Amino acid sequence: MTTDKTGPSASRRQFLTGAAAIGAGTVAATVARAAEPDPLITEVQSWASSFGDGVDATPYGLPIKFEDDVIRRNVEWLTADTISSINFTPIHALDGTITPAGCAFERHHSGAIELSKDDYRLMINGLVETPMVFTYADLERFPRENHVYFLECAANTGMEWAGAQLNGAQFTHGMIHNMEYSGIPVRTLLNEAGWSGEVEGKWLYVEGADASSNGRSIPLEKALDDCLVAIKANGEALRKEHGYPARLVVPGWEGNMWVKWIRRMEIMDGPVESREETSKYTDTLADGTSRKWTWVMDAKSVVTSPSPQAPITHGHGPVVITGMAWTGHGKITRVDVSKDGGKTWETARLAADSGDKALVRFYLDTEWNGEEWFLQSRAMDETGYVQPTKAQLREVRGLNSIYHNNCIQTWWVKPNGEAENVEVS
Amino acid sequence: MTTDKTGPSASRRQFLTGAAAIGAGTVAATVARAAEPDPLITEVQSWASSFGDGVDATPYGLPIKFEDDVIRRNVEWLTADTISSINFTPIHALDGTITPAGCAFERHHSGAIELSKDDYRLMINGLVETPMVFTYADLERFPRENHVYFLECAANTGMEWAGAQLNGAQFTHGMIHNMEYSGIPVRTLLNEAGWSGEVEGKWLYVEGADASSNGRSIPLEKALDDCLVAIKANGEALRKEHGYPARLVVPGWEGNMWVKWIRRMEIMDGPVESREETSKYTDTLADGTSRKWTWVMDAKSVVTSPSPQAPITHGHGPVVITGMAWTGHGKITRVDVSKDGGKTWETARLAADSGDKALVRFYLDTEWNGEEWFLQSRAMDETGYVQPTKAQLREVRGLNSIYHNNCIQTWWVKPNGEAENVEVS
Repeated sequence: MTTDKTGPSASRRQFLTGAAAIGAGTVAATVARAAEPDPLITEVQSWASSFGDGVDATPYGLPIKFEDDVIRRNVEWLTADTISSINFTPIHALDGTITPAGCAFERHHSGAIELSKDDYRLMINGLVETPMVFTYADLERFPRENHVYFLECAANTGMEWAGAQLNGAQFTHGMIHNMEYSGIPVRTLLNEAGWSGEVEGKWLYVEGADASSNGRSIPLEKALDDCLVAIKANGEALRKEHGYPARLVVPGWEGNMWVKWIRRMEIMDGPVESREETSKYTDTLADGTSRKWTWVMDAKSVVTSPSPQAPITHGHGPVVITGMAWTGHGKITRVDVSKDGGKTWETARLAADSGDKALVRFYLDTEWNGEEWFLQSRAMDETGYVQPTKAQLREVRGLNSIYHNNCIQTWWVKPNGEAENVEVS
Repeated sequence: MTTDKTGPSASRRQFLTGAAAIGAGTVAATVARAAEPDPLITEVQSWASSFGDGVDATPYGLPIKFEDDVIRRNVEWLTADTISSINFTPIHALDGTITPAGCAFERHHSGAIELSKDDYRLMINGLVETPMVFTYADLERFPRENHVYFLECAANTGMEWAGAQLNGAQFTHGMIHNMEYSGIPVRTLLNEAGWSGEVEGKWLYVEGADASSNGRSIPLEKALDDCLVAIKANGEALRKEHGYPARLVVPGWEGNMWVKWIRRMEIMDGPVESREETSKYTDTLADGTSRKWTWVMDAKSVVTSPSPQAPITHGHGPVVITGMAWTGHGKITRVDVSKDGGKTWETARLAADSGDKALVRFYLDTEWNGEEWFLQSRAMDETGYVQPTKAQLREVRGLNSIYHNNCIQTWWVKPNGEAENVEVS
């Protein structure tokens, strides 16, 4: 009943027949529903020797203890303290597209604050007819929408500009999550306050209720287009760390703009040029100048398994390569996978049609027989954009950037099945 | 900043201008970005007087303490003990379509067992070429699929046959959840073991590793069509209580067939007629005879808010009526809402196109001014089927049933905004 970890290459069918051969001999008698106790059946039935837990065991259901390692993780050396830091989604251990809130990435600028619905207020002011302050109960009275969107921090993969630094998809690509948001369109709230109808040159300044306020200026056109004030994620209240009770959703744009604990939106004649959009969240180029207003997250993908935290442990033969892809420009149309560091490519299978500005899961069902792989994935989106190599990105952007690194990632899969973060030239 | 709870009927705009009028006077100065501290701004900014929690506060992120009541709940008198009982999803407090695993319905027949991936085995036997036993690692090597499906217990709404018994959508309709499953098609596993290709008259008997084994016979045609052996729900490992590490997914069919801790699948010449498909999970009719093989969950819907656990507390004016609909026959095409116990109907807005055998969220954005409502919803699916009234259902099925009650639900919304489970004739 254990798999052959060292056997020669074989077709799936041959492999798995091999894998089950021990069982196959033993179970033969069961085909005719054995009258005598079959030792294998007896073993299988021994799994259930006693009663389990009742339905009232836990108020809020938690992952089983065997999954204790599938959690958000911090990287201590990244920041001076944890109230202004980052934790990473364990993407190497997940499948599908929905990120469970319990293990979904967080980035705080001054810690996660506790704000009750009763205390919550959202002000709309600036170039509006009637400045307004809404309670949480007011928000619930507006028509709301549901959409699945990815949120990616602009700094995701940011430590990789300088080389292959962090050994695990969780740490290189885990500043991302993908949830179903329920919220009120920003346009509905602005309409309520009465705005002029002028979009050209107008901006919406948004700030949160945490000490950092994390103020960001958003072109009014984007705010009116698809931004939401979200009150639920994956059907339930936002977690405290995700901005309970309400946060901004800015589909396809960098996560820093998704202001948490949102307390104010002001229509203005220009951008504020706040700390978060000048000294931070701009891209320093090779010549020392900076790009700003780089909001949209370009098409990107990563293989989540095999990867350094998800090595191949089951021996030779069939293996599923899987990962995820996303683009702030709409939909992913194709993902390719390379085993030889980008020399040749195979088109992966998308598990479902890509949603708009949402994660899509890809699979390549293939064989591995102990050969070395330099495993890569590259995403393409509906604009025709192709995810670039690290070399291509460095050519344009230099080496001084932190943000917006959407380069192709390489995992070196070794003959023993372990994987490592590497660069290929 | 509080809402007018007793004011006369008004348009949304009038209402909310009224609601914000106190603020409007106070904030006027902020339009020009007041040089002097504005009292309202000062109040709003006081929300952030200190730092919050760091990113390493919890290994697995939990709901904020203010949401402590949004949990699965048991009904003590329903069953003799909790290892053979039910808890209910707090659907009255959720939005969107995804059910977070942490508050998703469970039904155990002999308690939730703890089975590690290392100890896990799945046997395939019966009318196959090579009986096989797969390890969990084997399962991960097969091509897998992702689909969002609802799971509804056949007994959902079962206590309502006799009258309007339970006061809350959680208890009348909460034996349901809707998750994104990642799993291996049953057909792939059967192909691996080699079966004859004969479908007619063949059945798949499936059992779990818990003490109850919960064995169920499934027509082979269904098993081959869309059933999965799921290893993830909403991207992460199944919870222990949902069958960790693997469960059967039987899209659109009653939840009891979604065998948890799945340990064996046997192709047979006929059904086993196990306890779970004879004395249980059959429908006793008026004449004392029973319908069996009633697997498909017919189209159904329920208003989740307002409802007894989610009363209207915000006073008169705009209100969002919301709920969810589903059908085991494919897609929901329309949901209507009635405020007068089914005399007149308005078509609700679907938040998104219905998935196949998945929950869809509906909204009716409307006004409430203290009048009495007899609030109902009725779902229609792509087969043309219309969700029946309780009277229509009783006419065909009598009063002795427990299972498959998909009747239209009525909430009596009272002038004070509270709601109660009632029947209308």
